[in-house]
Amino acid sequence: MSGNTFGKLFTVTTAGESHGPALVAIVDGCPPGLPLSAEDLQDDLDRRKPGTSRHTTQRKEPDQVEILSGVFEGQTTGCPIGLLIRNTDQKSKDYSAIKDIFRPAHADYSYHHKYGQRDYRGGGRSSARETAMRVAAGAIAKKYLATQGIMVRGYMSQLGPIEIDFKSWDAVHDNAFFSPDPGKVAELEAYMDQLRRDQDSVGAKITVVAQGVMPGLGEPVFDRLDADLAHALMSINAVKGVEVGAGFACVAQRGTEHRDELTPEGFLSNHAGGVLGGISSGQPIVAHLALKPTSSITTPGRSIDTAGQPVEMITKGRHDPCVGIRATPIAEAMMAIVLMDHLLRHRGQNAEVQVSTPVLPQL
Amino acid sequence: MSGNTFGKLFTVTTAGESHGPALVAIVDGCPPGLPLSAEDLQDDLDRRKPGTSRHTTQRKEPDQVEILSGVFEGQTTGCPIGLLIRNTDQKSKDYSAIKDIFRPAHADYSYHHKYGQRDYRGGGRSSARETAMRVAAGAIAKKYLATQGIMVRGYMSQLGPIEIDFKSWDAVHDNAFFSPDPGKVAELEAYMDQLRRDQDSVGAKITVVAQGVMPGLGEPVFDRLDADLAHALMSINAVKGVEVGAGFACVAQRGTEHRDELTPEGFLSNHAGGVLGGISSGQPIVAHLALKPTSSITTPGRSIDTAGQPVEMITKGRHDPCVGIRATPIAEAMMAIVLMDHLLRHRGQNAEVQVSTPVLPQL
Amino acid sequence: MSGNTFGKLFTVTTAGESHGPALVAIVDGCPPGLPLSAEDLQDDLDRRKPGTSRHTTQRKEPDQVEILSGVFEGQTTGCPIGLLIRNTDQKSKDYSAIKDIFRPAHADYSYHHKYGQRDYRGGGRSSARETAMRVAAGAIAKKYLATQGIMVRGYMSQLGPIEIDFKSWDAVHDNAFFSPDPGKVAELEAYMDQLRRDQDSVGAKITVVAQGVMPGLGEPVFDRLDADLAHALMSINAVKGVEVGAGFACVAQRGTEHRDELTPEGFLSNHAGGVLGGISSGQPIVAHLALKPTSSITTPGRSIDTAGQPVEMITKGRHDPCVGIRATPIAEAMMAIVLMDHLLRHRGQNAEVQVSTPVLPQL
Amino acid sequence: MSGNTFGKLFTVTTAGESHGPALVAIVDGCPPGLPLSAEDLQDDLDRRKPGTSRHTTQRKEPDQVEILSGVFEGQTTGCPIGLLIRNTDQKSKDYSAIKDIFRPAHADYSYHHKYGQRDYRGGGRSSARETAMRVAAGAIAKKYLATQGIMVRGYMSQLGPIEIDFKSWDAVHDNAFFSPDPGKVAELEAYMDQLRRDQDSVGAKITVVAQGVMPGLGEPVFDRLDADLAHALMSINAVKGVEVGAGFACVAQRGTEHRDELTPEGFLSNHAGGVLGGISSGQPIVAHLALKPTSSITTPGRSIDTAGQPVEMITKGRHDPCVGIRATPIAEAMMAIVLMDHLLRHRGQNAEVQVSTPVLPQL
Repeated sequence: MSGNTFGKLFTVTTAGESHGPALVAIVDGCPPGLPLSAEDLQDDLDRRKPGTSRHTTQRKEPDQVEILSGVFEGQTTGCPIGLLIRNTDQKSKDYSAIKDIFRPAHADYSYHHKYGQRDYRGGGRSSARETAMRVAAGAIAKKYLATQGIMVRGYMSQLGPIEIDFKSWDAVHDNAFFSPDPGKVAELEAYMDQLRRDQDSVGAKITVVAQGVMPGLGEPVFDRLDADLAHALMSINAVKGVEVGAGFACVAQRGTEHRDELTPEGFLSNHAGGVLGGISSGQPIVAHLALKPTSSITTPGRSIDTAGQPVEMITKGRHDPCVGIRATPIAEAMMAIVLMDHLLRHRGQNAEVQVSTPVLPQL
Repeated sequence: MSGNTFGKLFTVTTAGESHGPALVAIVDGCPPGLPLSAEDLQDDLDRRKPGTSRHTTQRKEPDQVEILSGVFEGQTTGCPIGLLIRNTDQKSKDYSAIKDIFRPAHADYSYHHKYGQRDYRGGGRSSARETAMRVAAGAIAKKYLATQGIMVRGYMSQLGPIEIDFKSWDAVHDNAFFSPDPGKVAELEAYMDQLRRDQDSVGAKITVVAQGVMPGLGEPVFDRLDADLAHALMSINAVKGVEVGAGFACVAQRGTEHRDELTPEGFLSNHAGGVLGGISSGQPIVAHLALKPTSSITTPGRSIDTAGQPVEMITKGRHDPCVGIRATPIAEAMMAIVLMDHLLRHRGQNAEVQVSTPVLPQL
Repeated sequence: MSGNTFGKLFTVTTAGESHGPALVAIVDGCPPGLPLSAEDLQDDLDRRKPGTSRHTTQRKEPDQVEILSGVFEGQTTGCPIGLLIRNTDQKSKDYSAIKDIFRPAHADYSYHHKYGQRDYRGGGRSSARETAMRVAAGAIAKKYLATQGIMVRGYMSQLGPIEIDFKSWDAVHDNAFFSPDPGKVAELEAYMDQLRRDQDSVGAKITVVAQGVMPGLGEPVFDRLDADLAHALMSINAVKGVEVGAGFACVAQRGTEHRDELTPEGFLSNHAGGVLGGISSGQPIVAHLALKPTSSITTPGRSIDTAGQPVEMITKGRHDPCVGIRATPIAEAMMAIVLMDHLLRHRGQNAEVQVSTPVLPQL
Repeated sequence: MSGNTFGKLFTVTTAGESHGPALVAIVDGCPPGLPLSAEDLQDDLDRRKPGTSRHTTQRKEPDQVEILSGVFEGQTTGCPIGLLIRNTDQKSKDYSAIKDIFRPAHADYSYHHKYGQRDYRGGGRSSARETAMRVAAGAIAKKYLATQGIMVRGYMSQLGPIEIDFKSWDAVHDNAFFSPDPGKVAELEAYMDQLRRDQDSVGAKITVVAQGVMPGLGEPVFDRLDADLAHALMSINAVKGVEVGAGFACVAQRGTEHRDELTPEGFLSNHAGGVLGGISSGQPIVAHLALKPTSSITTPGRSIDTAGQPVEMITKGRHDPCVGIRATPIAEAMMAIVLMDHLLRHRGQNAEVQVSTPVLPQL
């Protein structure tokens, strides 16, 4: 399949550019009978939405989604669900200056060489604006997963140099940073305010967790659950690294430390991040992702134009100084889509499997 | 597609268990006219082969591959290439004791819950033995990529706590660890010898690099080149993390530091790892992967059996104390397969694109 | 992939019900640089449109398509093309009577058993209304294929008992039946008028031809060009049979008769329909499809309701007495999509192949 | 995916040429717990095997299959099943004369233009020899389907000009032609004997029927059950046409005749061939396929060589005078593979659907 479809049984296909008329998605494979309305998708869309605090881009997009198909009398029908979000706040004139210039660390250079041309308005297809549709599609997956007892949630675990410990899920919703530690919020705000004064941007680390996942999801050897998760999370704009469980920390771990021992009462640890041999173990699925600093900054940088001539580059316009701040709902959405797809695939092949061995909790 | 096929235009499908009769693969989509013989695959298979030093498992497998189809008069025909490796050193009796026990950090528990049963001999399908076929398939990709000026190579960049700096490619082939720094080998050997005395295992970090990749490979938004790389690398046994370019280091980077500036002479840095917006930029593709410590160790650990009863577990048999040591050829193979697939996909859609802008070197 | 996506490199994903808010499609993989506007799609949409003669349904749909993405400054960008057609003439009240009844030869019964529920308004997703998006997507393929010298055209070759000989392509556009024989039109009109008086419907046979197809398209053994064509054409509503070249006539043919001999001047016949071994031969690709009579007729029939009780069924509403009449543009669209996909796939794998043997014409 | 993989959840990937070392297949997605041994596959392989009567090619191949993986202690494990059949009776010297000549109606010309070269020995990959692996894979599907109450069977319904009425399933196994009418066998034998004397070949029509298929299989709009069936059956060598149910006869049918009325006791007819709106209805699935006359005949024909020069062509060697005679097990296999794939896909999405409406029998 071409590159704008994700998933095998539960598939999400998206289209749409930053400054085109609209974003559109088709979500195929959702089981029938799920109560669904546009409002169900709006909540996550609003969490991702720009302009909700001074720490994100000031572009104003209501991101109002319309369900075009696949829902009848308030329930999914099993037929593909069409989704539409009109772009409303496109200021195309802002972007004409960069038409023939490759912004450093942007996709301009690579799109130009791949396609021979590009929609330069706001990054076109390479803009993070497309992630709105991931969030909408992910909200469908989340809602279905909830009926199976699965909950997918995320938070910011690091902003630039500031590490953020997990304190509580409730805290996540009470601040603009998706910080799980309310005590860190003031520090984060101060850091971001200084960053804007510095005319610079910074990276971030996001953690996503799925609880209630039954053992058995994942299709070795190539479509391991963690491999598909890595695919999904690395496909988000600006992501440069993905970890499952202990992640890169496992390099320095010893086997006696890393292995999660089992007792009749449950697993004693979760270095595996909920995945053993590429298949969910029933423990929480835990993944981390690293997002690079926003490439669009107003501090001048060296670049070239399409003729190969040197230029000094300043990215104007309205940009997030830390793309990671709005990334939590996107990461949740991608994890939900992966779990949904694997749940359906697993059912397809193993519907008749019966196991008497009890499922262990995470201690 | 089911989970044992990777790729879309250049596809690799594998089957085979650790202690079954054979491993088998079908490589589909290789362009015709490529000179190919079993010897071409044997070199990389030998690099991955167990038992070549005291630091890896002592299982003896010649890993001799037979080409069953797709090659005629010494050249590929464009038809699918069948590959066969017979297992020769299966000691099935070694494994019967673990039939009803879930080894901690192994796939036993998750396979049991997924399929209701499992081939418990040496881990069955979940054994790293299957990676032999990845290496064989990857060698085909490597050989074709070489005709396009692309070279894929890897090395060990960290073993447990020991970080290994890159010194030279030549050094990589002169030691059992794939260490690019000959000066570190003695330290690595001493560490491994102590590890075996400790009856323990340790993790490792591998770095893979592709040079000569033309700009344009990658299919946003979901099949970005880095996303497919993450998928491919995370699908390797024991991998818990994948980074592209700066990876997790980008979390604490500022935009002014991370962005790779462009000059008419070339890119000034490569924090991006050769991928911009999910598409190759012409810079070297750089990825890192974290491998967990081997789960099979002789230090006793707590576990349960299929009836949920507690057991004390010791993994006997012949195991790698650090699975990362043999992982370099596997990681190279998976990167080569991804690049090959994306090269063909890119050609398919963009065969007619002509770009006059020069391709920049990495400075 | 789920069932609403067709193709591998050039993919078409559709959604939308007969009486929902809109039809939507995402066309992925179109090469960049193709001039494209909504007008380019409108022509074929108008050919398929209902209500253009008294011989088709009187539902009035302008079928006006909007391009939502993937086109910039009048050209395709290589990014996915989103398409939207609003439904305007949905008379939902017409359909409430059939909510709990299975109309004979409709998809009501099978959808009910598959999904447990269904959008009963006008057949919902099973309505031929979805084919509007096939036509729009196919028009993009057609336009690109034209740049490669490939032309896809179709005509009606039989209506009920009336066989229609091919006279000229020009004639096809001059009548409501897509008849290539202007001399037959009066007979067809009389037949249809009588059919309506009989309160009955009838089947039809459509022929589609692609000229200018280069040799080499098709991916044996499963994705033969003719196999994918059969898939594509059989996926059109009401189609019950597909033939390539001689089709079922080859059952009674002898080898000496069927084989298309080659001379330096060209092929002497085309019983193969342009496909040898699943790969295009450079001869015209010729396919025929059989469409069943419309199931929606006003002559009463026996059926049951969802409780299993017998009912007498009359299908009211606005229906085509012969769905085949509007099927020609749909069949063309599907053939164009298949050829487009295979052209890109072929290029991907075999871009470097050079053959000195001349391509033979069809004599 | 590339062209040698069929299916989405239950996938079959094959490789191997007529005169290479072996045929190989990987069957992925088979549910675990199915009792399976090589003997289970051998029965159908023997039905397809050449040389069992004077009416088929005299090539002697035992077609002995080895299971390489995916089966443990006599049961499938859910892991991919590797299959191997060694070629034993390759007389490569027979074929060297045709190295530079395009045999009429063969794949020589199209393979040459696609790949620039070809394995000319016995047709290489384009030989019907590859269908042995379809039969082996199909036997796995058949065995699983039988556990679900589904039985797939086929017969020859026409040989050249001789139509064969269905009399009984028992009769099919008692003659070399898979004729369901024992009274026709003598006529068929006489016809074939004359055909050989005429140095000619002839076409055939095969009918395949699946009984016991539950309603609900099929994924509209593109992966309708009948569309995937058409794909699968048209992908068999020599097939030029596929019909479902009434097939091309529906062109001349009226709606009142074609529609299968429903009563509380069951469906009154089966013109639909068991598929409504692309989804199985619970009625028997009925498909017909047309196979062209064998292209390899000893009556001289005109052709050209790779330099474009005219040649007179005689195909020597050992060939089936009617490829349709051995096609019944192949057609059964492909139908079984399609049903298996759709059964798993349907389960994946609709596992929770409950329908109280009774399933109707075929009256």
